[in-house]
Parts: sequence; C-alpha cells; structure tokens
Amino acid sequence: MPVSDKHRIPTRDLDTPPRLLLGPGPSNAHPRVLRALSNRQVGHLDPTFIELMNEVQSLLKYVWQTDNPVTIPVSGTGSAAMEAAVANMVEAGDSVLVGVNGYFGLRMVDMASRYGAEVTRMTAPWGTAFDLDTIRSHMEACRPRVLGLVHAETSTGARQPLEGVRELCDEFDCLLLIDTVTSMGGVELYLDEWGVDAAYAGTQKCLSCPPGLGPLTLGPRVLERLEKRTKPVPNWYLDMSLVGKYWGSERTYHHTAPINMNYGLREALRLIAEEGLEARWERHRTTARMFWDGLAEMGLSCHVDEDIRLPSLTTVKVPDGVDPGRVAKTLLTEYNIEIAGGLGELAGKVWRVGLMGFNSRPENVMLLLAALKDVLNR
Amino acid sequence: MPVSDKHRIPTRDLDTPPRLLLGPGPSNAHPRVLRALSNRQVGHLDPTFIELMNEVQSLLKYVWQTDNPVTIPVSGTGSAAMEAAVANMVEAGDSVLVGVNGYFGLRMVDMASRYGAEVTRMTAPWGTAFDLDTIRSHMEACRPRVLGLVHAETSTGARQPLEGVRELCDEFDCLLLIDTVTSMGGVELYLDEWGVDAAYAGTQKCLSCPPGLGPLTLGPRVLERLEKRTKPVPNWYLDMSLVGKYWGSERTYHHTAPINMNYGLREALRLIAEEGLEARWERHRTTARMFWDGLAEMGLSCHVDEDIRLPSLTTVKVPDGVDPGRVAKTLLTEYNIEIAGGLGELAGKVWRVGLMGFNSRPENVMLLLAALKDVLNR
Repeated sequence: MPVSDKHRIPTRDLDTPPRLLLGPGPSNAHPRVLRALSNRQVGHLDPTFIELMNEVQSLLKYVWQTDNPVTIPVSGTGSAAMEAAVANMVEAGDSVLVGVNGYFGLRMVDMASRYGAEVTRMTAPWGTAFDLDTIRSHMEACRPRVLGLVHAETSTGARQPLEGVRELCDEFDCLLLIDTVTSMGGVELYLDEWGVDAAYAGTQKCLSCPPGLGPLTLGPRVLERLEKRTKPVPNWYLDMSLVGKYWGSERTYHHTAPINMNYGLREALRLIAEEGLEARWERHRTTARMFWDGLAEMGLSCHVDEDIRLPSLTTVKVPDGVDPGRVAKTLLTEYNIEIAGGLGELAGKVWRVGLMGFNSRPENVMLLLAALKDVLNR
Repeated sequence: MPVSDKHRIPTRDLDTPPRLLLGPGPSNAHPRVLRALSNRQVGHLDPTFIELMNEVQSLLKYVWQTDNPVTIPVSGTGSAAMEAAVANMVEAGDSVLVGVNGYFGLRMVDMASRYGAEVTRMTAPWGTAFDLDTIRSHMEACRPRVLGLVHAETSTGARQPLEGVRELCDEFDCLLLIDTVTSMGGVELYLDEWGVDAAYAGTQKCLSCPPGLGPLTLGPRVLERLEKRTKPVPNWYLDMSLVGKYWGSERTYHHTAPINMNYGLREALRLIAEEGLEARWERHRTTARMFWDGLAEMGLSCHVDEDIRLPSLTTVKVPDGVDPGRVAKTLLTEYNIEIAGGLGELAGKVWRVGLMGFNSRPENVMLLLAALKDVLNR
C-alpha cells in the first residue's frame, strides 16, 4: 500500500527565541536542569533509575518538609498531580469543601465533581484569602470529608495562611488538601507542621524544571482512606494504590516513568538542597521586594495585600487607559520577556509576573522594570 | 519555624551507565532528540510553541497515516494516552469488547471497567492474534459500542492484522480502538485505510524519544460521540473536549504542556520524516530478520509465528534449564545491555528483545547475539 506524504511537512532545525519567562509559569529552567534532561537513558526498572527515584522522593520530602511515605512525581503535569490527589481522596457521594478565590479553586471544584463529590464552594474575592471563622462556618454547614485550599493561587498571587486549619479538620474528621503549585520551592511550606494531608505541585514554577511532572504527596490519613475504598479509584493512570507500588519498595511495573524528566527534576531538587530552603525562600522574598518597590516608584500597585502576597507571583494592576495585551505583546516581541494577563475575574485588570526559582534574581527585576517603564511611557 | 534537614540527602552529579536498551521499551532515544530536550524554553502559549504544536500534530498524522483532526501528544506516558482513548470513547453502561491475548489487553479491560463499561474479554493464547470469525462471533454476542484490539502486543511480540475489521465494526456500529505503542514508527500502520477510529502510542519505543508523552488520535466518529455525551468525561486531565481546544485553533489554556518533551518528540518525528516511513519500516524488518536468523543459528527459537511476529519486539523462548533472570542480569551488568523477561503468562518462558527506532541497527544485533552466546555458553 502506498504511503501518503500529505502530512510529511518540511521543518527546520529547532531554534527558539531566548525568552525570559516571567509569567505565572513555566519559568526558565536552571541550565544544569536542561543539561540533565539530555543525559543518556537507562531503563525505568534499571537499578540506577531505582536509586534515582529514591533520591527524588527524598528531596521532594525535604522541599515540602514532610515525612509522607507516598511523595512522588506524577508522570504528568501539575494538573495531573492535582487530579491524582482528587481521584484518590474523593469517593462518589463525599462532601467536599473547596475554597474558591481564584481559577485553580474552580478547577478543583470541576475535578471533584467529575469524581462524584457533593461539592460546596466557599467563595471569596479573587486575591483575598479565607480566615478560620469562614472556613469553620462552611465546615459546620457541609461537614466535608475533604477540604481543598489553594495555598498559592497562580491566578491571583494570593497566599492562603494555613495555621489553625488542621485543628478545624481534626474537629470535623476532614482531610486537608492543598495546592502548592506556585509555592513549592519558593515560599515557606511546612506540610507536616501544618498537618496537611495531601499536596501537589508542578515542576515548572519555583522548582525551575520544565513542565512534565507533578509532585504529589499523600499522608497516612489519605492512605488509610485509600485502603478502605469499596471501589477502585476510577482512574487507572493516577491510581496511587498502583503507582505507589512502582515508586515503593515493591517496584512493580505500572507505567514507564518519564526517565529524562526525572533526571531534570532530580537536578532541580539538588539545586534546592545545595542552596537550602531558608536561603531560597529568603531570596524569593528579597527579589519580590525589589520588584514591588520598583513598581511603587513607577506609580503601579499590586492587586493583593502585602501580608498575603506571594513572593513568587505578583498581580500588578493595569493602570486606567492602558491595554494590558499590548504591553505584554510588546514586552515579548521587543524584549523577549514573557509576562501574562489576568485569568477569569482578573482578566484585563492585572498582569501576572512570576519571579520563580532560578528566575528570582535582581537582574531580571531590573530588566523587567526598565522594559515595562519604556513600554508604558510610549 | 526551623527547617528540617532530615530528607536533605547528599547526592552526586548525574552519571548513568551507558546502557543499550534492547528490552520492550524504553529504547535509546536518538542523540538529536536528547539534544532537543535541553533546548531553552519558551512559554506554552508562545507563538513559537504554537507553531511547534502544529508541526508535531502534522508529523504524528504522517507516521500514523491519518487525517484525524485530533492527533496530539497527551501530556503523560503511553498509558495516559491509552486511558485518554478509553475515557473519551466509553460511557458508563457501554458494551466494550476487548481482545485479550497479552498484558496490554488486560490493561484495557481494567481501564474500561473503571469507566463503567460492561466489558467482554475475547481471549486467545498469548502470542497469537484474533481472526475475523472469532471477532465476529464475539461482536454478535455482546454488540459492543467499542472494540479494543492491541495492534502490537508489547508483552508477546505478536501483531494483530486489521484488514477486514472495519467492515465488521460498520456492521455493528462499533468504534475501533487500537494500541500501537510498539508499532508506531516501526511497523506498517495505515490508520485511515484500515478505518481505525482511535489509536494511541508511547514515545519511547519506535519513535526513539524518551518516555513522557503519549500520542493519541481520535477520528470523526469518536468526536461525534464525544459531543453527544450526556455527562462530562469523568477525567479532567484527559478530557479531550478540553485538551482539544488547547491543541486546536482556539488555543484555550487547559494545562501547561511539557515543553521540552515536545521539543524532543518534534525532533523524533522529523527524523522519521527525513528517513521516510517505507524505509523505516523496511529497516525494522531487515534488522529483525538478521536477529531471527542469528537466533536460529544459535538453536534458539521465537515464541510468535513469523507471519504475525513484530519486527520491533521479539519474544525469544528460554531454553530448558536456563535461568532467564540470570541471563538478563549478566547482560546488564557485564555488557550494559538491557533486555527483559516475560510478563504474565509468559513470565519465565521468554525474553523480550526490542529492536526499535534508532536501536534497530545491525551493530546492535551483532553485539546482542555475541553477548547472548557468551552468557548462555557459561
């Protein structure tokens, strides 16, 4: 039978522009991480890969400050890790309470609904956080089995304080799930100290690794519920009772792990271990402070109150009369700088600027402020 | 709060052994693919990435010989693409017929069951294929809405002929789903000519790209059913009505695509376009023939009949009195060659040897035969 050449299109050697990625993610990976990606392969059951898996698991625990035995990179992006958490924690009919103060709270609502949960939305204006009284009154009303909160809202730049939430969850026998996509590796996180039962993240934000893996951690209370399920998790790829056996001591084949992405993540985590978490968190604060001060000098202001503003992601208010899309486009085409506009409720109202991981450096702030000033003054 | 250094383990620079991966996958990626992985990043909505996404989609269509509009790499491994096909094609209560003549047929049964299908298993000995009469009689009995067949069984090395299956499916108004994980890019595939409605693959076999993406193609009949669903796909990450909008003309944000893995896949597909499908298929046949002849000279035989034996994956019978695990381990530790043992019904009975993509070369056959001879003669 003849082969059709209809879709055999001509292509050129890969040659991408030198972007500085200062949007809400992906951020630029560290050069050492990019090099690790191209390291020669071993098999997914090779003894040397098994050792690497152990290292990755251990270093993920360090960055999250947790002892949770199931702490692994899901073989998908951050959204896959989010869905893994939801799929494994929620059973059809469960009452689930989700804090919706941004786009990713909405996504959690959507996912939990698909797994048959009775979802209650606890809403707040985008860019604010929930206080304990509000959480308590909602928990009293819907008696949730799972409470989902977004620690770092990538759509708003707001941080959800978690002190005291565990005590509430204990009172209501409720699992606590948090989204740390934009905080992991850049913002203070003490999962065990805070009594978080499950969390997930992406690799392309403060970890400075390209997108493609989704760190996930499940604590003992989650694993206990997982064991007691009457029906299997209605998602084969993300069923942690199967995936956990591959990453655990059994090493049972489940799927073929993304070998080279795991090389990259390992290197990204090593860089954090070398720098130390406190130093890294402090660096993110210092860089963000420099950016915020610079914005103020230019007469620009931030959407989120400073006490809950994420150092990793700033939402900058668009001044009256300015077309936010034009500014972002000019920054990209003239200066190779990527920033993003607002999502959902904040569309057209803010720019989102990420200073994450390797990109959290004073030279990037200096360049962005100067370029922004130039574009705004035209 | 003090940071705990409990999991801040010491690590060394990444240094993996120079493995020749001749198992059932992953195979060694082409060096050009490894280089592409470490290319500097752009954003997942960058105009240059959008162009790259178009190229990847077009070249996937070439390799599969299909015009299906939804032909994309799922942001997970081959198993994620498999689950994406099942989740989007199956609705709870649907009758689904699956050909089970190996491990991956069983996996399809498991997945379809999780999505609430009434699954009928059509079984055959591992290493054989189904004929049209057998398929017809099962279809008459269970009137399936979806027929799932494994074109290239990675666990057995058998090829399922597909000529005539479309006509049967038309008769029963049934969708045809096929697993091409171990055939795509190495073995004859004419999806449109054969009337296949949906197929999936992994990148780490005959495409010679590391694992981490799962090519998926959905034809018009599948998309029509997807539109008519009464409930959303019970899997957010793999819901192709959402993912399709990101890869389609709308470019609506869904999740952050694995940028660098897509660089790698693009390069892998370019290599196939450069070589040409016919030449590539022929190369796989020639290399496999050399291996099979060499095995015969050593007195070893193959598990699968030659007329349905995959050139990409050979199951070699373990001679009486030989410990297959010892042989595989010695090949790995002394010669850095990875081959695998049997899975499921074939555990302990065969070795699985892959000659896939970049690895399908005479020097690899020569080395493997010589090393195998040495180890078997001890």
